[in-house]
Amino acid sequence: MLSFPGSCWMVPLAWGLLALSTLRGAPKVPDASKLRINGERLLQRLERLAEFGATPSGGVHRVAFSEQDIGARKYLIELMREAALEVFVDTAGNIIGRKAGRDRDLPVIVCGSHADTVPQGGKYDGALGVIAAVECAQALQDQRFQTRHPLEVIVFVDEEGGLIGSRALAGEVADTALEIISHSGKTVREGIEYLGGDPDRLNEAVRRKGEIKAFIEIHVEQGKVLETSGIDIGIVEGIVGINWWDVTIEGAANHAGTTPMDMRQDALLAASHFIVAVNQIVRSEPGRQVGTVGRIHAEPGAPNVIPGRVCLSLELRDLSAKKIMRIFERIREQANRIASRTDTKISFSPIDATAAPAPTHPRIQDLIEMSARELELSSLRMPSGAGHDAQEMARLAPIGMIFVPSVGGISHSPKEFTHASDLVDGANVLLQTLLKIDRSPSLTDPFDR
Amino acid sequence: MLSFPGSCWMVPLAWGLLALSTLRGAPKVPDASKLRINGERLLQRLERLAEFGATPSGGVHRVAFSEQDIGARKYLIELMREAALEVFVDTAGNIIGRKAGRDRDLPVIVCGSHADTVPQGGKYDGALGVIAAVECAQALQDQRFQTRHPLEVIVFVDEEGGLIGSRALAGEVADTALEIISHSGKTVREGIEYLGGDPDRLNEAVRRKGEIKAFIEIHVEQGKVLETSGIDIGIVEGIVGINWWDVTIEGAANHAGTTPMDMRQDALLAASHFIVAVNQIVRSEPGRQVGTVGRIHAEPGAPNVIPGRVCLSLELRDLSAKKIMRIFERIREQANRIASRTDTKISFSPIDATAAPAPTHPRIQDLIEMSARELELSSLRMPSGAGHDAQEMARLAPIGMIFVPSVGGISHSPKEFTHASDLVDGANVLLQTLLKIDRSPSLTDPFDR
Repeated sequence: MLSFPGSCWMVPLAWGLLALSTLRGAPKVPDASKLRINGERLLQRLERLAEFGATPSGGVHRVAFSEQDIGARKYLIELMREAALEVFVDTAGNIIGRKAGRDRDLPVIVCGSHADTVPQGGKYDGALGVIAAVECAQALQDQRFQTRHPLEVIVFVDEEGGLIGSRALAGEVADTALEIISHSGKTVREGIEYLGGDPDRLNEAVRRKGEIKAFIEIHVEQGKVLETSGIDIGIVEGIVGINWWDVTIEGAANHAGTTPMDMRQDALLAASHFIVAVNQIVRSEPGRQVGTVGRIHAEPGAPNVIPGRVCLSLELRDLSAKKIMRIFERIREQANRIASRTDTKISFSPIDATAAPAPTHPRIQDLIEMSARELELSSLRMPSGAGHDAQEMARLAPIGMIFVPSVGGISHSPKEFTHASDLVDGANVLLQTLLKIDRSPSLTDPFDR
Repeated sequence: MLSFPGSCWMVPLAWGLLALSTLRGAPKVPDASKLRINGERLLQRLERLAEFGATPSGGVHRVAFSEQDIGARKYLIELMREAALEVFVDTAGNIIGRKAGRDRDLPVIVCGSHADTVPQGGKYDGALGVIAAVECAQALQDQRFQTRHPLEVIVFVDEEGGLIGSRALAGEVADTALEIISHSGKTVREGIEYLGGDPDRLNEAVRRKGEIKAFIEIHVEQGKVLETSGIDIGIVEGIVGINWWDVTIEGAANHAGTTPMDMRQDALLAASHFIVAVNQIVRSEPGRQVGTVGRIHAEPGAPNVIPGRVCLSLELRDLSAKKIMRIFERIREQANRIASRTDTKISFSPIDATAAPAPTHPRIQDLIEMSARELELSSLRMPSGAGHDAQEMARLAPIGMIFVPSVGGISHSPKEFTHASDLVDGANVLLQTLLKIDRSPSLTDPFDR
């Protein structure tokens, strides 16, 4: 069951205008490869969207389920209707704008991202993906171009709080996730209701495998690989898998004055050897895997007491789950050697936040590369180190992702910035890739690879 | 001005008994080298003292200025009077028990320690020093032995909260120290009043240089050097100097997924290299210096964010202030290399908690060694890594310290334990050392060395 919110009179009107134009005689179908988005409009709309939750420091505070989120969503619904999309809100609260294709039997091509931000975030993360998707629809509408496949633009709910909207489409929202208190102060359950969804009927938001031909998302890189290498477009090879462990190092707390250096069981010294080893092991293999110790806690934590216990986090990310586990095994072996050398005990406990790698479809990667080349833009294949709605959509359909450069690699910050020309170039690559997918025969099932 | 608290009738009575025994005829002066303390009484009184603040886990919770502290002090005053000491409480709240010597013109030999414990502490830290000192006075009294020099037993106030009592004797209690809130919940000022002192007249507690011939303290080692090496008695060469620094490491917080390994400015990785380097540098020189990083804080402290800033503590201890600074310089140089290699900035800020080294008097070290040998006990010269009242007394007089073994080196814990035989041996070494100091010509001024 889909609920159609707000003032629905606009939709028939838009369809009416379309019908009218068709009646004027067989319109000349424009050459798809010549189609471009309206760059000025894209930039102006990105700025307008950033006003919902704008902060004095030039950033955006628009956490999911907040008033600012509601404001942004209303604005996006307006834009979708202006682009002649048929808009509805699913039971998870996702906004879906749909446009029919020339062939009613074909599966839908979906494009989108999210409108929520982290607390004190920036103007581009998520926002670019939804504004560019709407802009593609608007550009097609402006140029009277109808795709073979139906198109959908989706504004996903609460990406930053755990990919809630995209997980709902894949039927992957656990009951416990609904009870998490979001940054808005509401539980996810309350938040979904607040947006017009129905958390008790999330099953109605689930999409069938096969009904989506492809999902494609454009996003700022959130790193500085593209900027540093001077490349225009990142072709995402996949969203990396993430494994987390809690690591506990047990030594013996003791008086820092009366315990000679050779009688210590210093858990923080062992932890330091461990952190250095993680870095060395992760860097010792070719590839773009990353390993991070971001959190550390030493007990008892006084300057004059040798730490007896240290807890720290270990995170490993890579496109290959096998490689993650191979590197972890090397780290574990080295940890054993460190423990024996420092007279401590090191143990690992895997954490549930683990995500499997989500590879993008090779054919879509190729189509992005072709689109960039035709637009005279350089491109680079790279992993996405951050999580995105696309990784949940990968459970349902072939996915593709386009990255544009982030200045300084700064992300989740008011200082997040992408140059206007890169935003426009990225949106044009998105449009051209959409059109190429529209012309392609069906993609092989990514799950067969 | 000294105030004589409590029921003072016992003192004249004790002196009266002494006078009576002298009247019976010229008593035979016992051979000082044959004098021994009463081991059974020492142990029984240590157990009795441990009842004030006894915890279910077998430890003692008797923080300064608490009801338990008051109870223990009353008990100690009783014991002092039983040993025919003239008892008074100075304006800092220290309990001082004095006995005249045969020669009224000689300076006093002082012996003592403290009765307060850390929260959830043990039975021996401080307690051994006061009970053994009282036992020496009692043994002399029992055996009708009067020393040439006057003797004093001192129970110092609030050692664990910053050596308040011994600092008062040296005139070193800052006004700010009086306003510190102690573990009892009272400020130090309120606590001193509670014990019968007068915080506004602390100057009256100050002792003159020259009026004390020597100060000697017996204490549990609080480390496991003696236990591990199977040695009976530790001859303390000095109380180490302590220098503290706050160390700040600044890198750049960044997304752990999107920032490749070679583009990171990981403050925690730099901190880990630093902690390993501190350990290596401190251990690379001969000697018994120690260096500790006990506290660490990494920001922002999330598993999926590269730490941008780490604050940690650095503590160095040694008997030589020069050596501490030489080692610190080596650490600082190495920190610069680590900073440049990890693209971070490392800065040091010295902390006020610094204490200068307090060497013990070489002649007293020799007398302790002779006493141990005569008692057929093995001994070892060693630094005291922990602070003690003796270090403040070193400002006024030559000092000496005797250590007895701590099982497992456990300290400031209900598990703190010293074998009965070691307690008795240590107290006998204390008595014999006192008597040797009593027979010695005046000690050279330790400040001339």
